[in-house]
Amino acid sequence: MSNVANGSLDFLFRPRSLALVGITTANPEHWTRSFLDAVLEFEFNGPFYLVNPKGGNINGHRVYQSLHDIPQTIDYVIGLVPARASLELIDECATKGVRAIQFCTAGFSETGEAEGTRLETELIKRARKHGIRIIGPNCLGIYCPQSRLSFGPVFPKESGPVGVISQSGGNANYLIRQAALRGVRFSKVISYGNASDLNESDFLEYLVADTDTRVIAMYIEGIKDGRRFCRVLEKATRQKPVILLKGGRTEAGSRAVAGHTSALAGSEAIWDALRKQMGLIQVNSLDELVDVLVTLLFMVKPEGRNAVIMGGGGGASVLITDTFEKRGLKVPPLPHEIISKIREFTPPAGNILRNPVDYSQTMMYPERVAKTIDIIMQWDGIDFLVWFMRMGQSQQAGGLRVNSPMMGGLFSVGGGESSKPLAVVLEPSILPEESRGIFTLLQKYVSSELPVYYSFASAANAIDLVLSYYENRNL
Amino acid sequence: MSNVANGSLDFLFRPRSLALVGITTANPEHWTRSFLDAVLEFEFNGPFYLVNPKGGNINGHRVYQSLHDIPQTIDYVIGLVPARASLELIDECATKGVRAIQFCTAGFSETGEAEGTRLETELIKRARKHGIRIIGPNCLGIYCPQSRLSFGPVFPKESGPVGVISQSGGNANYLIRQAALRGVRFSKVISYGNASDLNESDFLEYLVADTDTRVIAMYIEGIKDGRRFCRVLEKATRQKPVILLKGGRTEAGSRAVAGHTSALAGSEAIWDALRKQMGLIQVNSLDELVDVLVTLLFMVKPEGRNAVIMGGGGGASVLITDTFEKRGLKVPPLPHEIISKIREFTPPAGNILRNPVDYSQTMMYPERVAKTIDIIMQWDGIDFLVWFMRMGQSQQAGGLRVNSPMMGGLFSVGGGESSKPLAVVLEPSILPEESRGIFTLLQKYVSSELPVYYSFASAANAIDLVLSYYENRNL
Repeated sequence: MSNVANGSLDFLFRPRSLALVGITTANPEHWTRSFLDAVLEFEFNGPFYLVNPKGGNINGHRVYQSLHDIPQTIDYVIGLVPARASLELIDECATKGVRAIQFCTAGFSETGEAEGTRLETELIKRARKHGIRIIGPNCLGIYCPQSRLSFGPVFPKESGPVGVISQSGGNANYLIRQAALRGVRFSKVISYGNASDLNESDFLEYLVADTDTRVIAMYIEGIKDGRRFCRVLEKATRQKPVILLKGGRTEAGSRAVAGHTSALAGSEAIWDALRKQMGLIQVNSLDELVDVLVTLLFMVKPEGRNAVIMGGGGGASVLITDTFEKRGLKVPPLPHEIISKIREFTPPAGNILRNPVDYSQTMMYPERVAKTIDIIMQWDGIDFLVWFMRMGQSQQAGGLRVNSPMMGGLFSVGGGESSKPLAVVLEPSILPEESRGIFTLLQKYVSSELPVYYSFASAANAIDLVLSYYENRNL
Repeated sequence: MSNVANGSLDFLFRPRSLALVGITTANPEHWTRSFLDAVLEFEFNGPFYLVNPKGGNINGHRVYQSLHDIPQTIDYVIGLVPARASLELIDECATKGVRAIQFCTAGFSETGEAEGTRLETELIKRARKHGIRIIGPNCLGIYCPQSRLSFGPVFPKESGPVGVISQSGGNANYLIRQAALRGVRFSKVISYGNASDLNESDFLEYLVADTDTRVIAMYIEGIKDGRRFCRVLEKATRQKPVILLKGGRTEAGSRAVAGHTSALAGSEAIWDALRKQMGLIQVNSLDELVDVLVTLLFMVKPEGRNAVIMGGGGGASVLITDTFEKRGLKVPPLPHEIISKIREFTPPAGNILRNPVDYSQTMMYPERVAKTIDIIMQWDGIDFLVWFMRMGQSQQAGGLRVNSPMMGGLFSVGGGESSKPLAVVLEPSILPEESRGIFTLLQKYVSSELPVYYSFASAANAIDLVLSYYENRNL
């Protein structure tokens, strides 16, 4: 089958009926059951059917012994059968009018063994013969909250502006769950595995045209058609910010890629050239990818690189300054007239009124914090403010009292005339007793649509990457 | 007063009696109260006295209105008085036989204001006149679990091999608390602030000679006497591993240093030269410092740079490989004979038997995990094994079931003939419901004396730094 025009891929994201073929009936903890959990949790708005040769039922939902037994045509199949049963499944699908199969099944070319590779080639041959499109194999498929299609039951139900292409299902899960906690919402996420039929270029082209997608993020291990991908990528970067996490950038990493999705990783030099030419935002980890997303989505574009950093802890102040300056961000000294204004209501001991502003002794007085931020925001010399909270700097144990006035000051600013972009560094704690308070605080910041970072270094890194992106495009 | 021979500094760490002067009687949440909490919690084994002009008592402990009222001589004073009362305190101390004052008080030269600087000069002049040694001002003083002296009530009570010099009190707290969670214990920690009398060279010299200290870690913002410091540092690095975190390595960072402890930061070039010449292990953050400590203490010295990485998640496997290889660590492919041996009891689908070993589908079978690790450990091609756990890769929510067999395999290896160094990557979660399980697992690993890292990147970084240290010394 020749390349289908990409507009038509829309049917993948809005199936009218589903079948989960190969779902386990016995063990509710089995990975295949997550797909049913997701269908139920998202209340998929069309008929869905479960299929397993053993028949029976799962929590009252009938399990059909075969696709043939289903009394209507099926649009979209989630294939959970073992690899050896995959060819037969294709033939069955052909008789039921199936337009696409998302093959979760592993055990194909990624095993590096001849039998798996042969099976994958035959799988695609048969699918093409019947005009059925394949996502995968060795993938999790599609998450599209708008059409209530999801491979994870715990993902957000609301849509958002981020479209994701991920060759790895585990990485897609991690990305969605981590980003969701920090306020990011998605238009479409596609986990596409071995990319034997539909590949990264197909999905990227779709996301470029998709009006629900404002930002594109990609985790890619290898490219099926380099020329086409470059063409599509160029179009993409002209229209939307594109963030790329490339897996397999080292020699051993590309061996790991071959074993994971059987892709050819391509040389690091090629990827670097693409990044520079096209203004891709390139990141090195999933966490960095999330950092860039929250910066693009929640940090109002700063006019420049001058930051005021404000929070608790003098030693931390020194280290955060070093971290920011090393990333090309500036931490200019507060001028005398600003310091004098703040000094009027702030004692010198324990509060270092330079930049960073070490407000250890004043954090407890929200009205002073708010007043200080207002004064600083009015100063022409800065472009944005970073607020930081570091647990574990005190000698005492104990959780963060979120209802204490400590953080009140930050919430009462912003929105005024003098308002400038804000960012928050909130460090997670490994201590369970601190973790609840930190999480509550995170949720407060996130619901205020503030960009939250888990470390100084990640904030500096993401803000630099996004500023460089704006600078290169003269935005 | 001329320089006292350093051996004599021992009296600082083993005072026979204490007075906490300037402790707040009214507010139990006030920072000065942590020092009393620490004295009580550590059951300091000598007489201790509380002093505040208001008198009264704190939880039944008498508060003296003045040092003069105390019916015996005092060895060591923790000075919590406001800066303006500091000179008078010195004079009083002189009449009570005090040998050292640890001045927590801030508001001296670090304010950048003339009055503070004048006061600090006068303070040291008077102390020298009376032969009293000063730690600080603007510091937290000493933590020495062996003599039950501590500035934090929640620090570990057991001693250990790590000696720390930290110019910042907040950074010392953070370091002790974070490192303790990962199994590190301390011989002595000194937070020394403005270093007006006793400085970094005095304390470093002491730790070099101290037989309880096997590893030295330093957070330094500026140096009082460069020549002496170089001399002492050279001696230190010849005898013990020395880890340095230098605050104020950028221009703005060194401005922050001036505001924090009034030190002159020195140029980055000088510090880099010192690092290379002396084989210092230089780190960029407190977390990195902890990573290096757990590597030095808990990772048996690997014979080389070849790692097998094993855990759950194919996408993560690719990224961890890239991360390790970029740090100069090697992730060699498993040879065919090793794979065949493992394949005998492991199905191919969902388990990628290359390196990294993606054991997503086998994690639940501890006996298989243990057997696999044993087989891999016997292979000549590797020097150490890194085990990793990443939450949030699955579509499902839910905490980690620590009592599930998932982690059993790892605990049943090690100790055998084939044993090689092990390291564990355990990622924290911001989710309170996952955090308890992860913390329990952390404690299990730590009690097995395994080095635990919170991310791939930090593991790769620390292992590379420590291997480079061994390689440079031909250890």
